[in-house]
Amino acid sequence: MNLAEKYAYMATGKPYDDLDPILIDRRNRATELTNALNAAPKAEQRAQLFQELIGSAGNDPDVNPNFRCEFGDNIHVGDHFYANYDCVMLDGAPITIGDNVLFGPKVGLYTSNHLFDATERKLGGCIAKPITVGNRCWLAANVTVLPGVTIGDDTIIGAGSVVTHDIPANVIAAGNPCQVLRPITAADKTGFVGNDFV
Amino acid sequence: MNLAEKYAYMATGKPYDDLDPILIDRRNRATELTNALNAAPKAEQRAQLFQELIGSAGNDPDVNPNFRCEFGDNIHVGDHFYANYDCVMLDGAPITIGDNVLFGPKVGLYTSNHLFDATERKLGGCIAKPITVGNRCWLAANVTVLPGVTIGDDTIIGAGSVVTHDIPANVIAAGNPCQVLRPITAADKTGFVGNDFV
Amino acid sequence: MNLAEKYAYMATGKPYDDLDPILIDRRNRATELTNALNAAPKAEQRAQLFQELIGSAGNDPDVNPNFRCEFGDNIHVGDHFYANYDCVMLDGAPITIGDNVLFGPKVGLYTSNHLFDATERKLGGCIAKPITVGNRCWLAANVTVLPGVTIGDDTIIGAGSVVTHDIPANVIAAGNPCQVLRPITAADKTGFVGNDFV
Repeated sequence: MNLAEKYAYMATGKPYDDLDPILIDRRNRATELTNALNAAPKAEQRAQLFQELIGSAGNDPDVNPNFRCEFGDNIHVGDHFYANYDCVMLDGAPITIGDNVLFGPKVGLYTSNHLFDATERKLGGCIAKPITVGNRCWLAANVTVLPGVTIGDDTIIGAGSVVTHDIPANVIAAGNPCQVLRPITAADKTGFVGNDFV
Repeated sequence: MNLAEKYAYMATGKPYDDLDPILIDRRNRATELTNALNAAPKAEQRAQLFQELIGSAGNDPDVNPNFRCEFGDNIHVGDHFYANYDCVMLDGAPITIGDNVLFGPKVGLYTSNHLFDATERKLGGCIAKPITVGNRCWLAANVTVLPGVTIGDDTIIGAGSVVTHDIPANVIAAGNPCQVLRPITAADKTGFVGNDFV
Repeated sequence: MNLAEKYAYMATGKPYDDLDPILIDRRNRATELTNALNAAPKAEQRAQLFQELIGSAGNDPDVNPNFRCEFGDNIHVGDHFYANYDCVMLDGAPITIGDNVLFGPKVGLYTSNHLFDATERKLGGCIAKPITVGNRCWLAANVTVLPGVTIGDDTIIGAGSVVTHDIPANVIAAGNPCQVLRPITAADKTGFVGNDFV
């Protein structure tokens, strides 16, 4: 199998060989490219390297150092993606992020699990499941998202949460494990209409 | 408004425009200065860059790489501040830290929230609330402190805690959300009087 | 006392002077060596610097940037150790890691506590307790392990966990504080036998 075929196999959710030489090479490429991204002095340079690194990116990504990922190829972000400091994404399976999504510092999205049986794990066995983050979501600082999770549009995940299962649209959720706290309603509007520093 | 006036406006707790070009420029300055700080080989060089970066610093700061902050200008630390590896502070509102404060690795202090309404958030709306950490506090590894929190003198926050509300002086607190476990008492004294390696 | 004698004293579990100049020098050496490790473009160079940095390492360590440690000298890892991005180990007391151990991103192992009494803490007082991780363990992303903890062979610690006490062999454990969820059994086998990309 070539790399694309391996990614397709991994996306089926079957166990796969994490120690495969082609995967290791591609991981090393991600480490080297993110080294360059993280060393780039200007936001524009980071944005350009991010677009080179990942599968597909919309307009105006803004990614702060240190960004890290496993492959990059399986990451797809919409327009106006913002990742604050120290974001990590492991993209053994696809990570799909909508438009206008904001990540606080230290956010981690992890699609891959090592196998639970120690003998199989020692052989390099992994299983990956996709992660999807809806439009206009905000994942606050130090949020961890586990394999297979979908987060609905407009939802906010509170700082320090560990998201172990799907979270619906338009709610505030937090905790370890992350639980829905309440819906977001019209009462959450502040009247902000932009550009208020005048 | 100039930058100082914008900071003053943000400190009132009103929603403000996170996408303001002057704020973005200042954030980029913080990223560039912390890049230099994190690349500096010697502790003395890091201390000097930290003092240049932040609003005010007491004597003998000791800041390990990678330190990151949003602006720096709104961070004020007392004497003998120690931050272990990978500390992040988002200082949209003032962060005020007393004397002899110790941070473990991966500590994050975040004064800024994006607005909860997705339409307002997409417009760049944020709200910031100050964070205050008392004298002689110890925040252990991977502690997250949320906007508006005050932590009293001498208090210890356990590793991995998410501090969502004020914590009084002279207690041990831990958990997500962080809760007071017990007061610190004379029974916690070990008899240590310094310089015991003789 | 020389450095080896100081480490031996610290390993007894007695309070010790964290501000000792010899310890500070050794910490600075660890920061400088990990700066070099983290800047190395190739995995082989990182492995070589990791073996130079730590007390003893088995074959084929694979350590991703940014790796950080307090001294390095008190870290002992078995064969085929893998640390994903942003691992931190504070090794005031010995950290002993078995063979075929896998760490997800952002894992932290911390053997050292500052003293609880604020006056003693201000004087630099610390206490360290060893951490032991068994063979074939997997610590998932953003796991924090506290002083004195032993984790048994084959055990999995779930992402975002804070491990405050010993965890037995061959279980899945998770949460803050980390609790055993269930044993790992034959039902966890998937049939994976390696090299399935053919």
